[in-house]
Amino acid sequence: MSRRIKLALIPGDGIGPEVVAEAVKVLDAVTATEDVTFEKSTFSLGAARFLETGDVLPDDELEAIASHDAILLGAVGGVPGDPRLAGANIERGLLLKLRFTLDHYVNLRPSVLFPGVPSPLANPGEVDFVVVREGTEGPYVGNGGAIRAGTPHEVANEVSVNTAYGVERVVRFAFETAKSRPRKKLTLVHKTNVLVFSGSLWQRTVNAVAVEYPEVTVDYLHVDAATIFLVTNPGMFDVIVTDNLFGDILTDLAAAISGGIGLAASGNINPGGRFPSMFEPVHGSAPDIAGKQLADPTAAILSVALLLDHLGFPDAAQRVRAAVTADIAARADTPSRRRTTDVGDAIVAHLHD
Amino acid sequence: MSRRIKLALIPGDGIGPEVVAEAVKVLDAVTATEDVTFEKSTFSLGAARFLETGDVLPDDELEAIASHDAILLGAVGGVPGDPRLAGANIERGLLLKLRFTLDHYVNLRPSVLFPGVPSPLANPGEVDFVVVREGTEGPYVGNGGAIRAGTPHEVANEVSVNTAYGVERVVRFAFETAKSRPRKKLTLVHKTNVLVFSGSLWQRTVNAVAVEYPEVTVDYLHVDAATIFLVTNPGMFDVIVTDNLFGDILTDLAAAISGGIGLAASGNINPGGRFPSMFEPVHGSAPDIAGKQLADPTAAILSVALLLDHLGFPDAAQRVRAAVTADIAARADTPSRRRTTDVGDAIVAHLHD
Ligand SMILES: CC(C)[C@H](C(=O)O)[C@@H](O)C(=O)O
Ligand SMILES: CC(C)[C@H](C(=O)O)[C@@H](O)C(=O)O
Repeated sequence: MSRRIKLALIPGDGIGPEVVAEAVKVLDAVTATEDVTFEKSTFSLGAARFLETGDVLPDDELEAIASHDAILLGAVGGVPGDPRLAGANIERGLLLKLRFTLDHYVNLRPSVLFPGVPSPLANPGEVDFVVVREGTEGPYVGNGGAIRAGTPHEVANEVSVNTAYGVERVVRFAFETAKSRPRKKLTLVHKTNVLVFSGSLWQRTVNAVAVEYPEVTVDYLHVDAATIFLVTNPGMFDVIVTDNLFGDILTDLAAAISGGIGLAASGNINPGGRFPSMFEPVHGSAPDIAGKQLADPTAAILSVALLLDHLGFPDAAQRVRAAVTADIAARADTPSRRRTTDVGDAIVAHLHD
Repeated sequence: MSRRIKLALIPGDGIGPEVVAEAVKVLDAVTATEDVTFEKSTFSLGAARFLETGDVLPDDELEAIASHDAILLGAVGGVPGDPRLAGANIERGLLLKLRFTLDHYVNLRPSVLFPGVPSPLANPGEVDFVVVREGTEGPYVGNGGAIRAGTPHEVANEVSVNTAYGVERVVRFAFETAKSRPRKKLTLVHKTNVLVFSGSLWQRTVNAVAVEYPEVTVDYLHVDAATIFLVTNPGMFDVIVTDNLFGDILTDLAAAISGGIGLAASGNINPGGRFPSMFEPVHGSAPDIAGKQLADPTAAILSVALLLDHLGFPDAAQRVRAAVTADIAARADTPSRRRTTDVGDAIVAHLHD
C-alpha cells in the first residue's frame, strides 16, 4: 500500500508562492517513482492575509497545520516599513509561533559551497558544514517587557531562557549529526565568558554528552570569534551547535559565504515526530522582486531535500541535491537570467541525469 | 604650562605587555613635540596576577585607576581551558568591571581597510566605517541566574537590560559621529522583529534623535542581515550603532574583513569625561605566541590614536594613523616577519615622514 503524507503548504508573501511552486514541482517529480502520495493543503498566511483579514495565525488553522505530517513554507513578511503592518508582528505571530508551538527544537541549516558558485570570500576553500540551531529557547522565547515605555525612564528587558531539557536534546541531535558525518567534529558556539549562566549550561551539557560520543571531536568558540573563522577559515567547521540567536546570526553569515541566501535551506525539526517539521528557505519574502519570476527557487528546492531526508526518503533527497549541483554547474554556461520556473524545470530535468 | 596627563597602563597577559610597550613608544614619540607630559603608572592585572595572588581587581586598584585621565590596556586572559582559571572570570571581573564601573557607554570600533592590507573578501572595495557599540547595558549587565543548576531541571536565564537613558546617550554619540563624517550615514543594527521590547526602544530612540540630525541618513538592518552585508558590501556602512552583544559580534567580523584583529583598535569611552576612558586593541592575549616578539602591535598603536583623539590631540592622532598607513604600505616590500619592536620602531620612524 502506498504511503500517504499530508503536506501543509504555506507559500506566504512576496516571492514565497513562486519558490514554493517550484519546490513542489521538484518534490512531485522526484517522488513520482516512489510508493508515496503527498496530499497537499495550502494555507494562506502571512502579511497579505493579515492586511486582508486581520488574522495572523488563527487557532483553528494552527491546529489544522499541526495535523499534517510536514510543512513547506515559502517566506512570510510584508514590505519593510509598511505602516499597516506596524501593529502586527508576522515574524513572532506566525513564523516563531509555528516553530514554538510545533516544538521545532532543531533548526537545521546546512552550508555547502556548491562547485561553481561564487563566494564573497577570496579563498573560501571547501565549505561543508551544518549549523544545528536551537529553536525553542534562548532570547527568542518572548519573555521581554518594558516599564515606563515612551518616557525617559523606560526600561526594556529581554530574557533569554535556557533549560537543561532544551539544551540537552538539541546537543544530542548535534552529536548524532556529527557522528553521521565523515569528519565527526562538533563546535559549540556561545559566549560563555559573558553569558555565564546560559553559557555554563551549554558548556556543561556538551561536555557531559561528549562522553557518550568518543568518536566526535569537540571544540568551542565564542560567537564573536566564530564570525572571524567563518570568513577566514570556513573549512574548519563540520557541525556547529548553538543557541537560537547566535544560530540566527551565524547562519545568515554562513549563507553569505556559501553563495548567498538564494541557496540556503533550512529545516525546523521536531525530531520525535510528535509535531510536523517545517522546511523553509532561509531567505525572506523579498517583496521588491515578487511576482516577476526573478526569485531563485533553489533554497526552497534544497529545503525539499531536507524534508525528504526527514520523512525517510534519503535517496530522493540525494537526487534533489545532485540535480541542484548539476544545475548550478550548468549555470556557468547559461549566463542569462533565468525565470523562477526555468530553474525549477531545469532541476527537474537534472533529476533524470 | 605643560599639560599633565595621568595615564594608567594595564599591559595584562600574553602579548599584552609586548604590544603596550610599542604603543607607549609611539605615544611618547608622537607627543614629544607637544606641550604635554604623560605620567604613567602601571597596574599589573590579569590572569597572571590572579594566579599569583588570587586578585582580579581589588577595590583600591580600581579606585587608583579611576583617578587617572585615561587607560591603555593590552589584553587580559590566560590560556584557554586552564583549570586554575576555571573559578575566575577575568573577562567579567576585570575587563567588563572596568567598562561598567567607569561608565564606558561608548565602545568605539573603527574598521578601515588600509591600502595594501589583504582582506579575506574577494572584492572588499573601500572599507571605512565605525561601530558605536553600547558598552554598559544589554545582555552584558550580568543579570543572569540559574535554578536547579546541575540537575535535569536546570533553568538558566540571562536578562538583557536596556534603558531609555542608556540607549539615548549612545545613540546621540553615534549621530554626532555620523554628522562629523563625510558620508553622514547611520545604520541601526538590532533584531527588532524578535527582541521586540529592546528593539522597539532602540528604534524609537533612533527615530526621535534623527529629527535633530536632518543631515544624517538613517537606516536599519537586522543583525543577521548585517553580517551578510558586511561580507558582500561593506562599503555601504559608515556609522553603525548597536547594542553591546551585537556590537561584540559585528566588530569581530568587521575586524576580520578589514585585515584581521591584528589591526583593530577600540576605545571604551566615557564621553562626559567623569571617568577615564580606556583604549585597547580588540585582540586577546594570544598566550600561544606571547613573549616571542611575534605579535603585531599595530592594533594597540591605533588604539593610541583613538586615545589621542579623545584627549584632544587630533593632529597627533592623525600622525599616528598616517605612520601606520605608511608602515602597512611598506610591508609589501618587507615580506619577512618583523619582531614586535621592529614594527613599533618602523611606525615611530614613519612619524617623521
Ligand atoms: C524572520 C525571523 C524571525 C527569523 C529568525 O530570526 O529566526 C529569520 O531571520 C530566520 O533566520 O529564520
Ligand atoms: C573579552 C570579552 C569580554 C570582550 C567582549 O565580549 O566585549 C571582547 O570580546 C571584546 O570584544 O572586547
